Amino acid sequence: MELIDGNKIAAEIIAELKAEVAALPGRKPCLALVRVGEDPASVSYVTKKQKSSAEIGIESRLIFPPVTISQEELFALVDQLNADPGVDGILVQSPLPKHLNEVAVFRRISAEKDVDGFHTMNLGKLAQEDDTGFVACTPAGIMELLRRSGVPLSGKHVVVLGRSLIVGKPAALLALQRHPWANATVTVCHSQTVNLPALTRQADVLIAAIGRAEFVTADMVKPGAVVIDVGVNRVPDATKKSGYRLTGDVHFPTVAPLCSRITPVPGGVGPMTVAMLMKNTVKARRQNPVKG
Amino acid sequence: MELIDGNKIAAEIIAELKAEVAALPGRKPCLALVRVGEDPASVSYVTKKQKSSAEIGIESRLIFPPVTISQEELFALVDQLNADPGVDGILVQSPLPKHLNEVAVFRRISAEKDVDGFHTMNLGKLAQEDDTGFVACTPAGIMELLRRSGVPLSGKHVVVLGRSLIVGKPAALLALQRHPWANATVTVCHSQTVNLPALTRQADVLIAAIGRAEFVTADMVKPGAVVIDVGVNRVPDATKKSGYRLTGDVHFPTVAPLCSRITPVPGGVGPMTVAMLMKNTVKARRQNPVKG
Repeated sequence: MELIDGNKIAAEIIAELKAEVAALPGRKPCLALVRVGEDPASVSYVTKKQKSSAEIGIESRLIFPPVTISQEELFALVDQLNADPGVDGILVQSPLPKHLNEVAVFRRISAEKDVDGFHTMNLGKLAQEDDTGFVACTPAGIMELLRRSGVPLSGKHVVVLGRSLIVGKPAALLALQRHPWANATVTVCHSQTVNLPALTRQADVLIAAIGRAEFVTADMVKPGAVVIDVGVNRVPDATKKSGYRLTGDVHFPTVAPLCSRITPVPGGVGPMTVAMLMKNTVKARRQNPVKG
Repeated sequence: MELIDGNKIAAEIIAELKAEVAALPGRKPCLALVRVGEDPASVSYVTKKQKSSAEIGIESRLIFPPVTISQEELFALVDQLNADPGVDGILVQSPLPKHLNEVAVFRRISAEKDVDGFHTMNLGKLAQEDDTGFVACTPAGIMELLRRSGVPLSGKHVVVLGRSLIVGKPAALLALQRHPWANATVTVCHSQTVNLPALTRQADVLIAAIGRAEFVTADMVKPGAVVIDVGVNRVPDATKKSGYRLTGDVHFPTVAPLCSRITPVPGGVGPMTVAMLMKNTVKARRQNPVKG
């Protein structure tokens, strides 16, 4: 069994992007990071994104409206960033306070600056295999982990556990693409699937994105499979200072010995998400007709 | 074994739409049918669509530009129809002459009038389970056939053979939706799939859309399965006046006896396509803010 080291692969991508940005003529890429309020998790995520931007040479524009901002005010802010030719990418950190309609806000971001890949147009482009779109960072990160770990998907059976819009569906669409590194046969399972273990045991590559702690057990995995664990779940743990430990959707201690390769949690898919956001931002800069 | 009668189900839908249109306040729905040149298949398709429109009470606006029309002229025509508040739906009949970029023309049609469901926004909405979009007529017709034949998909394993943008992918996304009539576990197989029969034999519902005559044979089908045959292939046949016969992607004589239900070719999925186009047009009329 070999661990897939997400931290190492993410660092490689960041280093490549740094070189790419250094060689870019004209202005540096610019990412607007919008964080509403002071939610501690959001503060930590945005800080991480800002640090990676700085490391690569991406200018980040930090906009921290108060938690009391209205939907209309937030729309006006997004419109302003959409219209600003010097802004290549816009990220509105999730979750938003409950009085704001998150889906409506994400849709307000113009598709060309939607580096999170949540816009309807970008999902449509993914289905159409149109590479000018932006793919959501987590599924894009999963594919990048597999490619860089030398796991070819062509002709393989990929089983995706979970049908969310953020992970399951885009991961399935990516694995299906006619790219030489994709071309997989794909099964999507979910909470309503009957006889789940019989299906997951067929997976050459199993992508677990169901959001249930340690849900995937040894009886659900074929010996020699590659397992990608997308879950980030907090499980109460009295031995920890925080009172909890992080665990994936896979019961690592019993599943890992069966696998040819597996991602740990943390340190697997997680670090890839920020790296892919940076990659999308550099792509947005390259595709932005305003280079000056 | 029971045949799924596409002609009968399509006629039911047409009758329902006729009643719906009769009850609509304000103007009747209007469908622009654009046919470039005189390709015989296109002439026959457009005539069929025009007849169904007339039967339902949908006004059809026939526009038959010459085969020599330029890309720019066709764009200008589409733009004019997009801007016309009295036009609810626009259909540009495929195939277009080779000097025209078909994908670019389809993209030019505004998403709100894209009753063929090919627009990137409409594909994205399908993935997002946003029911304001338009679903491509063939996959929408497949789901309608299954629903009206009393085949519930929830918890069933649907295997889609083919990953095209027009049938395979949207059919998979529809079967996966969280609707009570969907909720299936879905596998997408294609030309690169290894050990195809082992996968198709798992299907409770097998959707064959691979475009190869009589490709699905008895060894690929589980006894009791429901089989939907999307293929329309011409096979040379000296006993026919035309010199060919139509056949699906399924070898009907050997597969049909195994199935609980199966669609014939012709008379299965085919008639549903026009019915769903009509359904999309009535929906476009309901969603069009200009009712006058």
